Amino acid sequence: MSTAPHEDVLPDEELRTLLAHWRAANYLSAGQIYLLANPLLTEPLRPEHIKPRLLGHWGTSPGLNLVYTHMNRVIRKRDLDALVIWGPGHGGPSVVANSWLEGSYSETYPDVSLDAEGMERLFRQFSFPGGVPSHVAPETPGSIHEGGELGYSLAHAYGAAFDNPGLLVACVIGDGEAETGPLAASWHSDKFLDPVHDGAVLPILHLNGYKIANPTVLSRLPEHELDAMLRGFGHDPVHVTGDDPEQVHRDMAAALDQVLDRIAVIQRTAREEGVTERPRWPMIVLRTPKGWTGPAEVDGVPVEGTWRAHQVPLAGVRDNPGHLAMLEQWLRSYRPEELFGADGAPVAEVLACVPAGAKRLGSSPHANGGLLTRQLPVPPLEDFAVPVERPGAGTHEPTRVLGAMLEQVMKNTAARRDFRLVGPDETDSNRLSAVFGATGKAWQAETLPGDVNLDRHGRVMEILSEHLCQGWLEGYTLTGRHGLFSCYEAFVHIVDSMVNQHIKWLKTSRALSWRAPVPSLNYLLTSHVWRQDHNGFSHQDPGFVDHVLNKSPEVVRVYLPPDANTLLSVADHALRSKDYVNVVVAGKQPCFDWLSMDEARVHCARGAGIWDWAGNEQGREPDVVLGCAGDVPTQEVLAAAKLLRQHLPDLAFRVVNVVDMTRLLPKEEHPHGLSEAEYHGLFTSDKPVVFAYHGYPWLIHRLAYRRRGHAHLHVRGYKEAGTTTTPFDMVVQNDLDRYRLVMDVIDRVPGLAVRAAAVRQTMADARARHHLHIRATGVDLPEVAEWTWND
Amino acid sequence: MSTAPHEDVLPDEELRTLLAHWRAANYLSAGQIYLLANPLLTEPLRPEHIKPRLLGHWGTSPGLNLVYTHMNRVIRKRDLDALVIWGPGHGGPSVVANSWLEGSYSETYPDVSLDAEGMERLFRQFSFPGGVPSHVAPETPGSIHEGGELGYSLAHAYGAAFDNPGLLVACVIGDGEAETGPLAASWHSDKFLDPVHDGAVLPILHLNGYKIANPTVLSRLPEHELDAMLRGFGHDPVHVTGDDPEQVHRDMAAALDQVLDRIAVIQRTAREEGVTERPRWPMIVLRTPKGWTGPAEVDGVPVEGTWRAHQVPLAGVRDNPGHLAMLEQWLRSYRPEELFGADGAPVAEVLACVPAGAKRLGSSPHANGGLLTRQLPVPPLEDFAVPVERPGAGTHEPTRVLGAMLEQVMKNTAARRDFRLVGPDETDSNRLSAVFGATGKAWQAETLPGDVNLDRHGRVMEILSEHLCQGWLEGYTLTGRHGLFSCYEAFVHIVDSMVNQHIKWLKTSRALSWRAPVPSLNYLLTSHVWRQDHNGFSHQDPGFVDHVLNKSPEVVRVYLPPDANTLLSVADHALRSKDYVNVVVAGKQPCFDWLSMDEARVHCARGAGIWDWAGNEQGREPDVVLGCAGDVPTQEVLAAAKLLRQHLPDLAFRVVNVVDMTRLLPKEEHPHGLSEAEYHGLFTSDKPVVFAYHGYPWLIHRLAYRRRGHAHLHVRGYKEAGTTTTPFDMVVQNDLDRYRLVMDVIDRVPGLAVRAAAVRQTMADARARHHLHIRATGVDLPEVAEWTWND
Repeated sequence: MSTAPHEDVLPDEELRTLLAHWRAANYLSAGQIYLLANPLLTEPLRPEHIKPRLLGHWGTSPGLNLVYTHMNRVIRKRDLDALVIWGPGHGGPSVVANSWLEGSYSETYPDVSLDAEGMERLFRQFSFPGGVPSHVAPETPGSIHEGGELGYSLAHAYGAAFDNPGLLVACVIGDGEAETGPLAASWHSDKFLDPVHDGAVLPILHLNGYKIANPTVLSRLPEHELDAMLRGFGHDPVHVTGDDPEQVHRDMAAALDQVLDRIAVIQRTAREEGVTERPRWPMIVLRTPKGWTGPAEVDGVPVEGTWRAHQVPLAGVRDNPGHLAMLEQWLRSYRPEELFGADGAPVAEVLACVPAGAKRLGSSPHANGGLLTRQLPVPPLEDFAVPVERPGAGTHEPTRVLGAMLEQVMKNTAARRDFRLVGPDETDSNRLSAVFGATGKAWQAETLPGDVNLDRHGRVMEILSEHLCQGWLEGYTLTGRHGLFSCYEAFVHIVDSMVNQHIKWLKTSRALSWRAPVPSLNYLLTSHVWRQDHNGFSHQDPGFVDHVLNKSPEVVRVYLPPDANTLLSVADHALRSKDYVNVVVAGKQPCFDWLSMDEARVHCARGAGIWDWAGNEQGREPDVVLGCAGDVPTQEVLAAAKLLRQHLPDLAFRVVNVVDMTRLLPKEEHPHGLSEAEYHGLFTSDKPVVFAYHGYPWLIHRLAYRRRGHAHLHVRGYKEAGTTTTPFDMVVQNDLDRYRLVMDVIDRVPGLAVRAAAVRQTMADARARHHLHIRATGVDLPEVAEWTWND
Repeated sequence: MSTAPHEDVLPDEELRTLLAHWRAANYLSAGQIYLLANPLLTEPLRPEHIKPRLLGHWGTSPGLNLVYTHMNRVIRKRDLDALVIWGPGHGGPSVVANSWLEGSYSETYPDVSLDAEGMERLFRQFSFPGGVPSHVAPETPGSIHEGGELGYSLAHAYGAAFDNPGLLVACVIGDGEAETGPLAASWHSDKFLDPVHDGAVLPILHLNGYKIANPTVLSRLPEHELDAMLRGFGHDPVHVTGDDPEQVHRDMAAALDQVLDRIAVIQRTAREEGVTERPRWPMIVLRTPKGWTGPAEVDGVPVEGTWRAHQVPLAGVRDNPGHLAMLEQWLRSYRPEELFGADGAPVAEVLACVPAGAKRLGSSPHANGGLLTRQLPVPPLEDFAVPVERPGAGTHEPTRVLGAMLEQVMKNTAARRDFRLVGPDETDSNRLSAVFGATGKAWQAETLPGDVNLDRHGRVMEILSEHLCQGWLEGYTLTGRHGLFSCYEAFVHIVDSMVNQHIKWLKTSRALSWRAPVPSLNYLLTSHVWRQDHNGFSHQDPGFVDHVLNKSPEVVRVYLPPDANTLLSVADHALRSKDYVNVVVAGKQPCFDWLSMDEARVHCARGAGIWDWAGNEQGREPDVVLGCAGDVPTQEVLAAAKLLRQHLPDLAFRVVNVVDMTRLLPKEEHPHGLSEAEYHGLFTSDKPVVFAYHGYPWLIHRLAYRRRGHAHLHVRGYKEAGTTTTPFDMVVQNDLDRYRLVMDVIDRVPGLAVRAAAVRQTMADARARHHLHIRATGVDLPEVAEWTWND
């Protein structure tokens, strides 16, 4: 363990300015929680100056204010480009206060001016209808991280640092947050941080000791145990501990100087001297009281330094004159009259530590990453498209085809370094391994002879943690760079809650004119439900699409390309897009090529379309429409189509393939929604529709329930029937197979039940034959395993 | 760091029997992956003996077999009650092999007998249609943990150990799994393990070095760094490292003896000598090659000891005579003829280490926890019911009322210790604090003066990790005990994927006659979407219900009790039930009491019903039905009802409240589904239904789309509109408010639009007035804030 040196690196003069800035930030933090009026306490505090609902959190603020103040100092002193991730929950008042002090806030929101009137607005808007949230949020200048759900700060910090060699990313980790799984996993991100091409991450573990109602685990470990853990994570911890403001400020300044010197050495030796040993990155353990400088005791119980300081230390201020007096005393303890001029603007001493312009934390372009985004150089798709002479003549593994395209994206960004591919140990398994022709897997831990594709400077990121993949990529894209997350479909649910938060972030950001659009967060979900026959039931879940489609329609996009060329087209669109969450579900197993590249582009642009060559209506009115979405359902629908042609040649049927799931929504509900006329142009308004869908069948109803003709819609999909079996048995078990689809057509088309009874029996027999065969042999019947559209 | 002593604690004779057992298990593991026939290699291996699809994973098996063999030894030697959680993915062949050797498998599945015929069945069924999965799964005797998704093994181990003082729970953690967030967080579970009332957890971190395609992070740390980390987690690691079987067996025996001696001392000193210092629990770091004893090299590349051994080391066996010969050589290297008699049964030497009866790992009743379950002593609800003279006369905080009932459950189980309440630091916040009258919060870390409710022996579990709450409770209930997880509604999405896996486990278990039903996993979701006005958008997500309802209907139950007494009734039912996942969504804020306890019981048993007193049809045919589900929507519907009575007294309307969401499903789709006649008895088949739902509105359509009359169903709910605002503004922003509902009625009832145009305008005006008021004052208008049903 290193300890901050006790000699004073800080001249008294400078210390005084830092204390002034800190007091100002503390004052402004408390003011936001409490005050509606009288912001400068120019008159005695009265109940009507107090907000009617006290909705805020004081506990974490003084510690964050300390960090902000000292980050200001080092940014200014060292001319750093820095970004801070504010992890603790409810840190809003603090970060807002500091960005107001430095001027960033008023530049972003001119009506919240840097004067008394602006200060009153600043106070009033906090946790107030029409105002700003109590967390650090998209509304907060300088932030890429919502301090709401907790767990993701350190992953975001690393994501921001990757490929930003000039950037220092400090990350304040609350000791509550540190108990979460994602944060616990994030400590190992240092094995993936390249000191040459990446920036530095400086974790600041803030132990204020308490969560909402409990002590925190890490704050109640013996220091040697905590240190052992942090050293085990690869860090060299420097401690700053105390409750005496002057001493803590002195120690914090010394600690920051020490760790930044060390980081400078690490980067210099790696970059200039070619040192390749994994560095032991420094970090800070900051131990200060929760609710520091707030009321020590309220109504006879201790508050400062306990969990009771978490939220509003004085709750009865409007009704309880004693509380009101304590609040006034508390606020006046910061001596606002020394900190702000008569006009309400901070005085020079307060601002002495504040850096200028884009160096200010609230004005960093990295925290408004769209400002830095360059269009991703996606290569021409023709270079990777598979030839399709006629539909179904050949097969390809769609993700492998995509892999070749991604290799070129990696090559095109070799110098720019603004594209990363992340995934939990599955790039190979998901058949994207072509990318290794352009770059390797980021890896700073030990290597052994025989290792392949590990690369100190690689831009493929693999760790067996979907949380880290997601968190890294969020940090990377929110700072303006591009990426793709390839994941087993079932296990992407691990990050359901993270993607919720990211979508909420994007939704809110889009409404803020000052936030520039950032690259979309792109998912490739593969190794999907229908081809997890070998991994079994635990690996079968197509519900992420349902989860995402509950979210804001302006942000979410869901694509199910049915073959290789459509996957290329969809990926091209996703990679070029901004401010979306794009979910692409595509298989890695050999799949028939249905559309040429040109056809694929047109089909994907439309999002849904009639496949003339697959149906047989040819000018007749169709008796039935076969809908399909997803690669396996599309194949089963085409196989059903072939059976219908063979067994029921008089039946007029249409095949409609849907790539963009949101096309099924009414246009009033989603920007991609089809108009009622367009929908009926595809599906008719009165004919039976037998729809084979990749996921849970009721999703299609949830999308299409408002459509006239919805009563005629019959959907097949995954219904939690699955185990270790054969690929075709998976579709049989879920009634999505070709035979069942033909039976569905017979059951749904008026008048067909009797006429086609024998055909129906033939289909039922085929299903029974299949069952006996796989139980005997373990493999599918040749009639399905070797089926082709063309013969 | 401790190191296993090198002196031999193992007599040569015993070593020989352990090696024999291990060889047998290795043979049987490989046999399952490859062989359809010729199980004892009584004839030369031919292609037709080989499975047509090789679906299995060899890599992890030899290490697991080593652990199983040595657990057998110590169980027998020390007469232990032990359970092992097999964390690594795809460990199925190993655990199945060992449980077959010990006889548990054949007792569970008599057709897989302990002879050559049974061995052939054992081999054939593995990863074969109609057979067993490649993971440890519900089908595997002795398991409570699916080795599929990875991340939850250690949390499950702790869950199993809590309140099982006589049980040793060993937990094999793969180094792949160790990279996940949930596993990383689980290490701190030792701060919650009571050496007096809980059993011991013995983590065995198995570093075989590789995942699917990469080295693992932990295996590539310098040993001092790994040790520092583990010591930082509170453990004392003992290392077993090597690839020489004899030496590794000797070291493993010594290591296990050492750690078990240490555990015995810890438990004795805590239990008999009253030592309260948090113990430094021992653990084992086991470093052996991936695919150990398998083919060293295949086609010129190294396999044993690399990631290439992850799955099937020899892939071309059926077609490639060279591979076939290598497989035969590999299998014969275990000398099966020495291990199995002519009848195929294992010989005495192989079985020398195996314990007897229920001591066998595959026969532990703890792994079939329903066998040990005692009915939970839920107290009479009347003791906690709130008095309801007439609907809406009073208010209570429903979760606080439930808290009193839970306190009594805690008291009733004080001696039995088979009930736990888990939650992420939110028991107080969720107003369940009455439980602290009966027990405290489990806590073994340091305490300070001023701490409240921390308790070395407490049965409330709080840590800021939903993953740990979920994992602990899964382990606790799967070993037969009871519990409740209280969680902020939005953040329960953090465990979406875990609950997926648990539901899949229960679904599969229910189909296995030998598995006794276990207590349900119960969620109380509170601090819900409508009352997160102060926390803002990041805390607003009601989608967990949607997520759960995608899953197997035989397992999932979703309840939205509208008041305190209905919450009691629903909780009573959930706590008494088995083999379900019960999701209960209920508020913590003051809520009107609508139903007396008797009425609540009847209403909850029905799951949905007409509230006569709220509607005004009184024998008339209703013009419109107002549906509601959830506490806030129910209040808004009743407020709308009151407005309708006032403004449109001639309109006949009915109020239907739904508690059990699955009642809306057709009875063919869910065991609780209403018949079509029952549904129409509530909602009619042709009248407009205006339905106010707690969550995403389309969920109601997804449940009810098959109903005749669905076209008349109009649903309001949460649509991702939210921020920091007032409670009433939340419902206004989402069009769920009383005024909008009245407008919806006017818009939907034929003929009303013109007649009630003025009323409609009055409603629109009220919404506008509300908006101006909250922007000016920050609080809701008295007409909504102080609204009551009775006046």
